[in-house]
Amino acid sequence: MAGLFITFEGGDGSGKSTQIAMLAERLRALGHDVRSFREPGGVAAGDAGERIRDILLDPVNADLGVRAELLLYEASRAQLTEQHYRPALDAGAIVLCDRYADSSVAYQGYGRAVLPVAEVQELNRIATGGLVPDLTLLLDVDAASGLAQATSAGADRLEAAGREFHERVREGYLEIARAEPGRVKVIGRAPVEQVADEIWSHVQPLLSRIGRE
Amino acid sequence: MAGLFITFEGGDGSGKSTQIAMLAERLRALGHDVRSFREPGGVAAGDAGERIRDILLDPVNADLGVRAELLLYEASRAQLTEQHYRPALDAGAIVLCDRYADSSVAYQGYGRAVLPVAEVQELNRIATGGLVPDLTLLLDVDAASGLAQATSAGADRLEAAGREFHERVREGYLEIARAEPGRVKVIGRAPVEQVADEIWSHVQPLLSRIGRE
Repeated sequence: MAGLFITFEGGDGSGKSTQIAMLAERLRALGHDVRSFREPGGVAAGDAGERIRDILLDPVNADLGVRAELLLYEASRAQLTEQHYRPALDAGAIVLCDRYADSSVAYQGYGRAVLPVAEVQELNRIATGGLVPDLTLLLDVDAASGLAQATSAGADRLEAAGREFHERVREGYLEIARAEPGRVKVIGRAPVEQVADEIWSHVQPLLSRIGRE
Repeated sequence: MAGLFITFEGGDGSGKSTQIAMLAERLRALGHDVRSFREPGGVAAGDAGERIRDILLDPVNADLGVRAELLLYEASRAQLTEQHYRPALDAGAIVLCDRYADSSVAYQGYGRAVLPVAEVQELNRIATGGLVPDLTLLLDVDAASGLAQATSAGADRLEAAGREFHERVREGYLEIARAEPGRVKVIGRAPVEQVADEIWSHVQPLLSRIGRE
């Protein structure tokens, strides 16, 4: 593919959306075509992806089973991948995602601890047709401070699932990073500008791939 | 499991819902606990399954990709299986389903002809945790007359997908029946009462399994 596919992972409250906005600005200043997405979701109110997001985050659906939950995340991911990520990458754009396949492995695999991680990975492969990021930035903050950050901004169903869950998610993320050190870079807690510079140190070398510096 | 899991398959307009109602009545008259479901969907307006159904059947979502579509069907199936089919079967009930896993193989596998059939089967296995029907009744009508029957009652997105699609679906169903002749019984077009009697000839011998005749 002609473009660059960069995903951001980490717990709620780890600062992903701030860093994505900062990276997008930096890349656009260099003249790159940058497209940002967040999962689960779509690209416009009322589209299939946004309706899936509504089901997942609605506390009314607290009886959603673990398999149904995972498949809804994968459906949203499949739709974004097919309709947006791949066309944008083919067109040479830089695609920035707030969560992608690793989120399902960390949350529905390691976090929920009901389905085998290998099964979640297999679903990711089917949902995305095997699209793997060029770079994944894992914003690692300890579960306690990330959770405090996130719940201060309002809680959803996932955030209500408790502390131990979030600790398993964090461990799952670190396990993914250990398994794929080339793709996944772990970024520790630090002041916003310092995190942004560390992210840039991983992104900058990749820009030559799309023929710009 | 203590109960009996019977699924109905076939094109739209093949008479599944009529036959399910007739079979349910016959079984209830013998004192059986019968629960009927239809896929995709849920059990109450506004629940996760019904909201998934709305996304799938809404013509606004005509840009739904083939992988996203399949994963939404599987999400609905996972939720029904986990929350309703399994508990009912554990309680000794007879569960009648208007569509189940074979529908995804026939429609999203053979019909859409984009994803490998083996991938659809793997998704079925993950979504249902491997729950396989005791009996599947395939109401086989040629694509032309089934389609005419269905569209006279109003068309949805799937029905708009055309004649050749429905012919591939029918062939897919027959292929499934050839592969699993013990589980899947093919019932040809015939007057309603005659179809009901043929269905009964397959159901009646299974009733001893749940300790009733």
